[in-house]
Amino acid sequence: MSTTPANTDIFTRRESDARSYCRGFDTVFTSANGSEMIDQDGTRYIDFLAGCSSLNYGHNDPDLKQALIDHIQADGIAHGLDMHTDTKAAFIETFEKHILTPRKMAHKIMFTGPTGANTVEAAMKIARKVTGRSNIIAFTNGFHGVTQGALAATGNGYHREGSGVPLNNVTRMPFDGFVGEHNDTTAFIEAMLVDQSSGMDAPAAIILETVQGEGGLNAASAEWLRSIAQMAKKAGALLIVDDVQAGCGRTGRFFSFEESGISPDIITLAKSISGFGLPMGLVLVKPEHDVMGPAEHNGTFRGNTHAFVTARAAIEKFWSDNRFEQDIARRAKLIEQGLQAIADMIPGARLKGRGMMRGVDVGSGDLAGEICARAFQNGLIIETSGSEDEVVKILAPLTTPDDMLLSGLDILIDAAQNVLGTYKYAAE
Amino acid sequence: MSTTPANTDIFTRRESDARSYCRGFDTVFTSANGSEMIDQDGTRYIDFLAGCSSLNYGHNDPDLKQALIDHIQADGIAHGLDMHTDTKAAFIETFEKHILTPRKMAHKIMFTGPTGANTVEAAMKIARKVTGRSNIIAFTNGFHGVTQGALAATGNGYHREGSGVPLNNVTRMPFDGFVGEHNDTTAFIEAMLVDQSSGMDAPAAIILETVQGEGGLNAASAEWLRSIAQMAKKAGALLIVDDVQAGCGRTGRFFSFEESGISPDIITLAKSISGFGLPMGLVLVKPEHDVMGPAEHNGTFRGNTHAFVTARAAIEKFWSDNRFEQDIARRAKLIEQGLQAIADMIPGARLKGRGMMRGVDVGSGDLAGEICARAFQNGLIIETSGSEDEVVKILAPLTTPDDMLLSGLDILIDAAQNVLGTYKYAAE
Amino acid sequence: MSTTPANTDIFTRRESDARSYCRGFDTVFTSANGSEMIDQDGTRYIDFLAGCSSLNYGHNDPDLKQALIDHIQADGIAHGLDMHTDTKAAFIETFEKHILTPRKMAHKIMFTGPTGANTVEAAMKIARKVTGRSNIIAFTNGFHGVTQGALAATGNGYHREGSGVPLNNVTRMPFDGFVGEHNDTTAFIEAMLVDQSSGMDAPAAIILETVQGEGGLNAASAEWLRSIAQMAKKAGALLIVDDVQAGCGRTGRFFSFEESGISPDIITLAKSISGFGLPMGLVLVKPEHDVMGPAEHNGTFRGNTHAFVTARAAIEKFWSDNRFEQDIARRAKLIEQGLQAIADMIPGARLKGRGMMRGVDVGSGDLAGEICARAFQNGLIIETSGSEDEVVKILAPLTTPDDMLLSGLDILIDAAQNVLGTYKYAAE
Amino acid sequence: MSTTPANTDIFTRRESDARSYCRGFDTVFTSANGSEMIDQDGTRYIDFLAGCSSLNYGHNDPDLKQALIDHIQADGIAHGLDMHTDTKAAFIETFEKHILTPRKMAHKIMFTGPTGANTVEAAMKIARKVTGRSNIIAFTNGFHGVTQGALAATGNGYHREGSGVPLNNVTRMPFDGFVGEHNDTTAFIEAMLVDQSSGMDAPAAIILETVQGEGGLNAASAEWLRSIAQMAKKAGALLIVDDVQAGCGRTGRFFSFEESGISPDIITLAKSISGFGLPMGLVLVKPEHDVMGPAEHNGTFRGNTHAFVTARAAIEKFWSDNRFEQDIARRAKLIEQGLQAIADMIPGARLKGRGMMRGVDVGSGDLAGEICARAFQNGLIIETSGSEDEVVKILAPLTTPDDMLLSGLDILIDAAQNVLGTYKYAAE
Repeated sequence: MSTTPANTDIFTRRESDARSYCRGFDTVFTSANGSEMIDQDGTRYIDFLAGCSSLNYGHNDPDLKQALIDHIQADGIAHGLDMHTDTKAAFIETFEKHILTPRKMAHKIMFTGPTGANTVEAAMKIARKVTGRSNIIAFTNGFHGVTQGALAATGNGYHREGSGVPLNNVTRMPFDGFVGEHNDTTAFIEAMLVDQSSGMDAPAAIILETVQGEGGLNAASAEWLRSIAQMAKKAGALLIVDDVQAGCGRTGRFFSFEESGISPDIITLAKSISGFGLPMGLVLVKPEHDVMGPAEHNGTFRGNTHAFVTARAAIEKFWSDNRFEQDIARRAKLIEQGLQAIADMIPGARLKGRGMMRGVDVGSGDLAGEICARAFQNGLIIETSGSEDEVVKILAPLTTPDDMLLSGLDILIDAAQNVLGTYKYAAE
Repeated sequence: MSTTPANTDIFTRRESDARSYCRGFDTVFTSANGSEMIDQDGTRYIDFLAGCSSLNYGHNDPDLKQALIDHIQADGIAHGLDMHTDTKAAFIETFEKHILTPRKMAHKIMFTGPTGANTVEAAMKIARKVTGRSNIIAFTNGFHGVTQGALAATGNGYHREGSGVPLNNVTRMPFDGFVGEHNDTTAFIEAMLVDQSSGMDAPAAIILETVQGEGGLNAASAEWLRSIAQMAKKAGALLIVDDVQAGCGRTGRFFSFEESGISPDIITLAKSISGFGLPMGLVLVKPEHDVMGPAEHNGTFRGNTHAFVTARAAIEKFWSDNRFEQDIARRAKLIEQGLQAIADMIPGARLKGRGMMRGVDVGSGDLAGEICARAFQNGLIIETSGSEDEVVKILAPLTTPDDMLLSGLDILIDAAQNVLGTYKYAAE
Repeated sequence: MSTTPANTDIFTRRESDARSYCRGFDTVFTSANGSEMIDQDGTRYIDFLAGCSSLNYGHNDPDLKQALIDHIQADGIAHGLDMHTDTKAAFIETFEKHILTPRKMAHKIMFTGPTGANTVEAAMKIARKVTGRSNIIAFTNGFHGVTQGALAATGNGYHREGSGVPLNNVTRMPFDGFVGEHNDTTAFIEAMLVDQSSGMDAPAAIILETVQGEGGLNAASAEWLRSIAQMAKKAGALLIVDDVQAGCGRTGRFFSFEESGISPDIITLAKSISGFGLPMGLVLVKPEHDVMGPAEHNGTFRGNTHAFVTARAAIEKFWSDNRFEQDIARRAKLIEQGLQAIADMIPGARLKGRGMMRGVDVGSGDLAGEICARAFQNGLIIETSGSEDEVVKILAPLTTPDDMLLSGLDILIDAAQNVLGTYKYAAE
Repeated sequence: MSTTPANTDIFTRRESDARSYCRGFDTVFTSANGSEMIDQDGTRYIDFLAGCSSLNYGHNDPDLKQALIDHIQADGIAHGLDMHTDTKAAFIETFEKHILTPRKMAHKIMFTGPTGANTVEAAMKIARKVTGRSNIIAFTNGFHGVTQGALAATGNGYHREGSGVPLNNVTRMPFDGFVGEHNDTTAFIEAMLVDQSSGMDAPAAIILETVQGEGGLNAASAEWLRSIAQMAKKAGALLIVDDVQAGCGRTGRFFSFEESGISPDIITLAKSISGFGLPMGLVLVKPEHDVMGPAEHNGTFRGNTHAFVTARAAIEKFWSDNRFEQDIARRAKLIEQGLQAIADMIPGARLKGRGMMRGVDVGSGDLAGEICARAFQNGLIIETSGSEDEVVKILAPLTTPDDMLLSGLDILIDAAQNVLGTYKYAAE
């Protein structure tokens, strides 16, 4: 657009102090391709952040890009509210064919406002309407967005404080591993559900991420997930899997819960569902729970037709057979090895997460932050996660070529070595 | 995309019952251009809905379209979280130059999740943080979105019920005209604010639409707005103008409040801000109230870069001089005349709204609905508004050529005549 | 008890700063009789406060006193939870015979914890259970107690602030006269109830005091009360009259609403119901709304048997014929004349209240406070009321002999004259 | 009062269905003395319920009774709002001398409305005002009353449901032993407090009963209490011990927490504090937290002067030396032996509670209920406790003579034997 390098003054002068990532990645980006972002000086960065898992298929995938340009060229609908369009039909058909039917999922698709938080708000409403109950169980370190309903389910204290009002109608339960590795938190949860004087009101739903993307990449075990699913059923509560960050292949399969064998009543998807980084969100709901009336939960952008175009193309390209899953599995191994190399440098460090949603808990937010900052200086975009930002988190595009993945990991390992050298030096 | 007509079965089979507009406009749209939408049979419809005011510049404006294609072709960033991009810089510079500076507005821009509701949630948080108060005053018949925080400020009972939990921390006050034309509601509001035992807790903010888009096109008088602004100031409350639907030229000027001369502390924009129907939302906040910390209110899609491209192009094209405002004024007159023709047919009917956000209250939701249905049969997309859907509402693209506007109005007048003929016949 | 004058040091040293009335009436009281309180120096004070209307029959009425002593001497039950006791049976029978049956009231009696606030909490629960709705309409300047549920219905800002949490599930409506004498507030209330997008959720109940004891002795007109009763019925909401302060004869009849002819679904009584100043509270509820299950709303002291003894004796003594009502009517006139004398001294002053629940709004809290302080120096216990404490309020025992009433009024008039003299002096 | 036996028809006809204890103890009581209640047929019952621990010194203690009669005879104040009275001074002085000073407690005394719930409401307000936080930690199976603020802290599902609105601003934590004997619940609580993303907002207070009277007589260990006290301090939260039921000697010392050595910031007392079963409640608060302004938390009956009379007499009679504590210890042993005899009859049964607040968990509410019903037939008033009413609970007056205590225990053991015989018979 602009041919001369943009002056960042405009951001300081006119953008709200709420801006955030630009503070850690202090340059002006102008283009992006695959797993790389390029700034206005022409410097290329390997992207291990991928729009917080919104770019699972990388930047500007050529097939998705072409489909989108074709659509726009042909005066395809850009904004159609929730009217019928051929584009929407094509997306639903493709999603049904490659995602729902093979997994024997009878779920219906509800298009909500195009943010993850909006899908969570809708999911919570559905559960409350189905059950006539107000209380929803959410977990420690969970992150579900920052609009008021979703924020009540979010654990992060900084975001909660931002609401300016008490956040209510949610009961917090300990996630798998929250009270130490050997403490099975389901015993407490079950006691709370069973005891009539526990003080926990009957829940409309249990909402969870199978891997907590913002909360430190805590991965629930398949067994724990099955226990929770059983308890939800017994308690007459719906099970909501918030797959906004962990879905769309991030943990190895399309949905993050597939390995556990559970069958959630409601699933939320956003981030990578458009495949191209375009805003889109949807809720999958079992037909028997599809109770929202026409426009009862509405929103102007619930029909982002550009996103339908790229979403359809992405499903067709990556999910019509199992080759992509195999790629992910292989790359996940490479990531694991790279992170293990870092973990080996730091006493007490441990790997977190699952699939290509991995990280290493280095025990301190300062250390993790310095490693990421150093990595950025060397051409790698990467962020932290966790209550104290103590986890170096890799969310590389799932399509990252193996050699580029290794290059990125090398930068990261190098950064860790450098920072730790400094640390040791400072300690001496 | 698909070359054979889409079967609407897929929607029935797999789309949630929450779908809504597709019920009234029962066809499958495939393309759109300017003020027209075309369905798969090639039928052309004049669009007097315009994505509920999200398409103020029409569908696929050629200049915006070209700018977007160029951006995509060049591998421009699609999704950049809230990093610095040249595209974002260009938008902000353009918005500053053509919108903020000429209006002497020092406001900073906060990019939120790309929905109107999300901008309202952010605005409410800001006000609560600035004041340390939780209560927010909202108005009868106001509509601010359906996520939980915004929904508390929304008046519509159907949407409120959908939340499944009590909606709190908002006090409802009567909008201008709510208790009849001659009842100045500011007297009550002032008494509530002044009396220490009124039972209304000190407000963090007063939030309002100057013209209530969903609530029946009730337009506040400039005098009423000034009274409210003064009361807010005296009460130590921020004034939030939710300009999501009424902004971006809809009422005649860029902001809907310009004629009244008030200076809101916070303004929300979404819908037409991208200019192309792409999801985008932003909050304008006076610098002294820009208190949200980095990512305190965050969201994955707060950097929809495609939307920045078209938003910049739209501002440059339509708002760099005052010709567009003159066009709107002229078209508003045409609309007023058309609606008056309908009002003249119905005893008690009255015109509502302001600028190109106009409608006619025909006294009954059934009648309004039948008129709109008949109009659709004759090639016009148009919707109702109001508590009882009693207002036939015109939200045509502001760019609609005068002759097409007149054609649309003719269809509407014709529909009204037909329906009223039927009505009379039924009554006899 | 203690024979030497008590040192007030003990209060300063060990009683919480939350103590209040003792600050205005700075002496140590040792006994009381009829309409007089006596301090440890033997000074006698005429009591125009009467325990905030808890002592409508005066202090230590000889017949009630004897009944209570007899009960205690005979080892009558003091505390019986909500078991059957002969004492309770006797109270209920008497209350049925002299109060309920003559007024054709089929209401059942629910004994709650012995405070007014507790009766209100119970009433609100009943209404919410009956209707399945959470919202309750309460009025500007209403006072219903300070426990969290009741406090939500209370208008006073100082008390509301004390809760430390937002108070919710109550919508505030303007009381009769709140927006000026000639503004009929029922128009607004009806619009809020009828308009489906007003933003007011369907109410479980409308709760009100017919005369607002703490809020400035605002007396609703009979017509306004009938309108409200009709609107409640139409809206499917229960009508709750909080007669804690205005009941038990204070406004002229046993219940404060009798003159208006309305038939509340629920009535709360406390304060003077025991007749002797002993803690007691009860809720009258129409049989069809008697939905609380056994102990669903419970409380240890819901069977204060001493209070049943005196309550029965009081009903028998004062309400078995209409002589007491005649006394009240006559004394109310004397009070009115006295207050009018004060009103005549102060431009803009006006009389407030009804029956023996009367006051004069002197336009300023400072002035009202000074008048009361001066009166206390001259042997009269009297307090203020209203948002700004601007009303000098008389709540003399209903049994106060006419000459003592006149003596008290003389002191008050004298105080007003003195203070106003000072004021004028200061103004000159 | 009434000399002919009362007909219970009056209760059915006119008392709300909310009545409760009268259903289990289906007779009409007329007098009471010491540890016995007498019905209108002259049948004497040993009272192992003692007004739910409101009659720790038995019914109509002769010294308290005489003091009260003397007070009434002398026209002592009955109701004095919160004015200074010699009676109140005498109570405070006595309470300071025998209770506070010997325990080195600097606490100030706040007189609230005369119910336990009201003391809890006040305590929660104080903590919220002191800290500026809204969240309060309460425990599973806790019981703190049923007014809305207190009810939020109460665990019982039946009572919670009765509120008709979501109960908020309280986080529920597992009490000592809630997740099994060997699960130290403090690990979870600490993790919730320390983790910045746990989702638990910083607490204003931690409120607990050291022995959960209604929740099944769960007794916290001294070590657990000390951990909680330390965590509260570290978290900047006030520690509130709700000693309404467990205080006034019930567990062996005046306060239930004395053995643990903790120093609560706030303590609530009601039930037995008047000594005579008269309504009275107070809050003890450390001077640095005495932040409630004058009447900020008010209530008409916060000065029940009759209760001050008996409360003073009770403190003097029972707490001026340690003889009463020795009596309690001895009687607690007798109770333990009696309950153990019952426990020995039932596989899995176990003793609960501490001091003279003891019970036996018989594993089933039906069984416990039948035992109590049988005991009543044989002249013993006794109740159950626990989520499923599975605990037979003894709350005998602390003054019960040893032989009467043994008689009561014999009736209870006998009842258990009989019922269990029936049970076995039914099972065979």
